[in-house]
Amino acid sequence: MPRRQAAPTAAIRFDIVDGPAAASAIAGAVTTTGGRVRSLTTVRSIEGDPPLVEIELEVDGVEEDTLVAALEAVDDVRAIHRTRALGTVFGKRIIVVGGGAQVAQVALGAVSEADRHNLRGERISVDTIPLVGEADIAAAVRAVADLPRARLLVLAGSIMGGDISAAADELRAVGIPIIALNMVGSITEHVDLVVSDPVQAGTMAVMAVADTATFDLDRQRGRRY
Amino acid sequence: MPRRQAAPTAAIRFDIVDGPAAASAIAGAVTTTGGRVRSLTTVRSIEGDPPLVEIELEVDGVEEDTLVAALEAVDDVRAIHRTRALGTVFGKRIIVVGGGAQVAQVALGAVSEADRHNLRGERISVDTIPLVGEADIAAAVRAVADLPRARLLVLAGSIMGGDISAAADELRAVGIPIIALNMVGSITEHVDLVVSDPVQAGTMAVMAVADTATFDLDRQRGRRY
Repeated sequence: MPRRQAAPTAAIRFDIVDGPAAASAIAGAVTTTGGRVRSLTTVRSIEGDPPLVEIELEVDGVEEDTLVAALEAVDDVRAIHRTRALGTVFGKRIIVVGGGAQVAQVALGAVSEADRHNLRGERISVDTIPLVGEADIAAAVRAVADLPRARLLVLAGSIMGGDISAAADELRAVGIPIIALNMVGSITEHVDLVVSDPVQAGTMAVMAVADTATFDLDRQRGRRY
Repeated sequence: MPRRQAAPTAAIRFDIVDGPAAASAIAGAVTTTGGRVRSLTTVRSIEGDPPLVEIELEVDGVEEDTLVAALEAVDDVRAIHRTRALGTVFGKRIIVVGGGAQVAQVALGAVSEADRHNLRGERISVDTIPLVGEADIAAAVRAVADLPRARLLVLAGSIMGGDISAAADELRAVGIPIIALNMVGSITEHVDLVVSDPVQAGTMAVMAVADTATFDLDRQRGRRY
């Protein structure tokens, strides 16, 4: 699925009185600026009278000053902070899901490799969750499609198949490739690349998404290392 | 900063024609249901005529069927998928920032410990980024306040201070505690806990946020291990 070039993004965090109309008021204010909401996320709730929610807002195609002015005009908005779009701080995300022992070793390889690319101007994060069980792992694979900035999934375990393989097909259909460790089960037939060593799998995962690397996953598709 | 009890959350992903009015249309539809937008995130853009964006939407206080019906009534909405709220899949997030060597070792401890708690029904993710330089690390510390579900930061490096210490104070002020490795620089005076061994630091970080653990960070504040 091709990506269009990213427009400049303005980012702010602010408090607003919690209520059913809050999101409409925010979206309406953004519309007046001509910008497009890229994300609007409740990062925490604040007890009080009235209760507040703290919102992180990212908007494409608008200057930060214009965005701040539009939000200041909204009733119930308090305490606006200028922040940075999360993509400029945490960048592309490699997601690692599976058993704790393997996830930790994939993370070791991926973090070490990301360090080398981030030193050269890349921004690559390595985000992990250890999970057990077909249902929970399949749900996590499907949810990677909902994670902003997720670029590649590594499945790190000893046995995966069934609904996890179905979820892997769905995830690849939305454009997120998958690397799996060499393991028992049908999953190795439903991923882009199979790598036996977890440190190498983490390293290749980062190389596959780094603009500073010359690794082309398309040329490796279906191979096993 | 106290958190209120979470309401049930409905989550869907859908395509919508990209345009300045898209977020307003979505927020307006949610308002008619009486729900409150918890997050509205563009997960990817799809080239075409017209160009589409794929949106992940989470709404508190509404049934999923009601949410789907409200969105189906919006012009320009296509291809609605039911998803799961990301909090139920990836749960609480430990963020690890710093040098690659140390980040990888903290991740090893944290992933191994999270595995043990996730087996007992917890959901804890370990999200990492290796970075170098005062400005970039300080920006990442500040941005942790903007990350949904971030519960604790681990600073894993050999020397940190200056603006990183200022950023640490700001992050703690919004209610996110920090564990630092024992290192050179002022940072160890601006965190909740200092731990010399990175695997232990990662382990304690997970214990501090796990409901299935009996570790109380409040009772350890200011200590060094």
